[in-house]
Amino acid sequence: MIIDLNTAVSRLQSFDDVLILMHHSPDGDTIGGSFALCRALQRLGRRAAVMCDDELSDKYSYIYKGIERQQFTPRHIVAVDVADAKLLGSLRGLYGDRVELCIDHHATNTQYAAETYVDPSAAAACESVYEIIRALGLEVDCDTANALYTGIATDTGCFKFTNTTPKTHRIAAELFETGINYGEINRIMFDTKSKSRLAVEQMALGGMEFYHKDTIAAVAITADMIKTSRARECELDGITSLPRMIEGVIVGITLRQRGEDTYKISVRTHAPVSACALCAAFDGGGHERAAGCEISGSLPEVKAAIVARAEEMMNALGV
Amino acid sequence: MIIDLNTAVSRLQSFDDVLILMHHSPDGDTIGGSFALCRALQRLGRRAAVMCDDELSDKYSYIYKGIERQQFTPRHIVAVDVADAKLLGSLRGLYGDRVELCIDHHATNTQYAAETYVDPSAAAACESVYEIIRALGLEVDCDTANALYTGIATDTGCFKFTNTTPKTHRIAAELFETGINYGEINRIMFDTKSKSRLAVEQMALGGMEFYHKDTIAAVAITADMIKTSRARECELDGITSLPRMIEGVIVGITLRQRGEDTYKISVRTHAPVSACALCAAFDGGGHERAAGCEISGSLPEVKAAIVARAEEMMNALGV
Repeated sequence: MIIDLNTAVSRLQSFDDVLILMHHSPDGDTIGGSFALCRALQRLGRRAAVMCDDELSDKYSYIYKGIERQQFTPRHIVAVDVADAKLLGSLRGLYGDRVELCIDHHATNTQYAAETYVDPSAAAACESVYEIIRALGLEVDCDTANALYTGIATDTGCFKFTNTTPKTHRIAAELFETGINYGEINRIMFDTKSKSRLAVEQMALGGMEFYHKDTIAAVAITADMIKTSRARECELDGITSLPRMIEGVIVGITLRQRGEDTYKISVRTHAPVSACALCAAFDGGGHERAAGCEISGSLPEVKAAIVARAEEMMNALGV
Repeated sequence: MIIDLNTAVSRLQSFDDVLILMHHSPDGDTIGGSFALCRALQRLGRRAAVMCDDELSDKYSYIYKGIERQQFTPRHIVAVDVADAKLLGSLRGLYGDRVELCIDHHATNTQYAAETYVDPSAAAACESVYEIIRALGLEVDCDTANALYTGIATDTGCFKFTNTTPKTHRIAAELFETGINYGEINRIMFDTKSKSRLAVEQMALGGMEFYHKDTIAAVAITADMIKTSRARECELDGITSLPRMIEGVIVGITLRQRGEDTYKISVRTHAPVSACALCAAFDGGGHERAAGCEISGSLPEVKAAIVARAEEMMNALGV
């Protein structure tokens, strides 16, 4: 059931022993929002903890630094920024049917939770968590603000993407005033590249291919490239935005090898092509401008399949 | 003489036939601020025009689109975002001594103008121009907001750099509400790479060199690279931020060949190294984290000179 902000707040006011779940392959928004909410509940005297199917990258460590690790048997399960129970990964078995409250901003939320507060106009789940914390009667302290800022900044590409709104900027201004270390956060999130990341990028971009009069660009990141560059998973963040950056490109496709014959596809588009619709054709999903799916086959097969579908869509749209 | 905002506003109220000057190699801030001010003066019924020593890149064309080109003999000269008369380029001869009012945000402003309104806490001159336009009693319309947003976004790296303040975000929120096309502006300014730009980047990064235990990174962009890639000047914007992005790098140096034996050096630093101080050693200047200078010599000589000075400074600072 869809609920409003006040109902979500009153649910949280009634909850204790709260386990907060993130989505797998956790990003700044699910991490920032979950820990900000955890801190808030703990400040209200509740037991609260955060859990994720995957390990968190070290670069987010300032978000959970100093947070009390509480042991308890969860009585209430909350999910933050998790649009689909599938995204809970291996936690789905244990908790997938038990999520009481989901706080999210994805229009595609499947409403797997008993109650869902979803604001698709919010650039990040962290915007909603900010409003919820304020509605719980708490001041947003600097630690919480660092967490929330991380979610907002990462989900908007540092206020660059079209999901950014006047409210996003106003919340950022409020968070700044708590004394957050935004310069350092931005440096870590947006302006830091490891040498291995640089190497992978150079290899991938060196092999970029163009289709449909240069309006589709595709790069592949193969297992070999990862091996040669020694790049770790967490160093590949955001690499999927590179093909769409090329002038004239409307559909940017990144194919990431998973195992021998499976590719994780990330699609980034400009209007009028819907990344979400393109990926839905392969059982994937996401947002209008950024979506993903998985396709099995050899690299040439997989590439041909996604490019063909993109061309079909673009022809239908007349682009 | 340094003046306050209100005095600057009352000067502008008394001016007619105003020529507004930008700095050479014009960026989003000097272009956005100058045209926003020009539009404001024209809306007040004054004759106003904008001039720059260099041609403006096409990517800024939405800023001056539809602005009335007025012919008149300038009676008042205003400069926007011009920290030093030298930065007027060839316009210096004609107007360098005649600038009555300078609106700027560089702490290094040389006060070459009769009166200078400088707010070093402003992330961009466009923040001050925004306040001035409001103080002139004008609503900020969408065209003006597109111009001001461009200056603010480009000077802050889209709200990423540490010059961003709560006020920066609040002004951005106000500008958003006029209906600006921020998604498109951000795409043009931050997420668009021509194929030739990509080629130059791949070549330059392929030859990146590290010094001082990998805390200094230097890349050279030679005339040959420019020729091979067919990159135009305006396609090289922001390339100077690449070396500093590498993990562990404190001083990022970009050497850009100008003529046979002259290099334009761009320095980007992290704390505690002052880019401005490093460049000052070679008669250059700028901000704490971003500065520039010019050095003559062969590429190895020039590189050795700037790296040696950087190492000296870093040794003195114990980094």
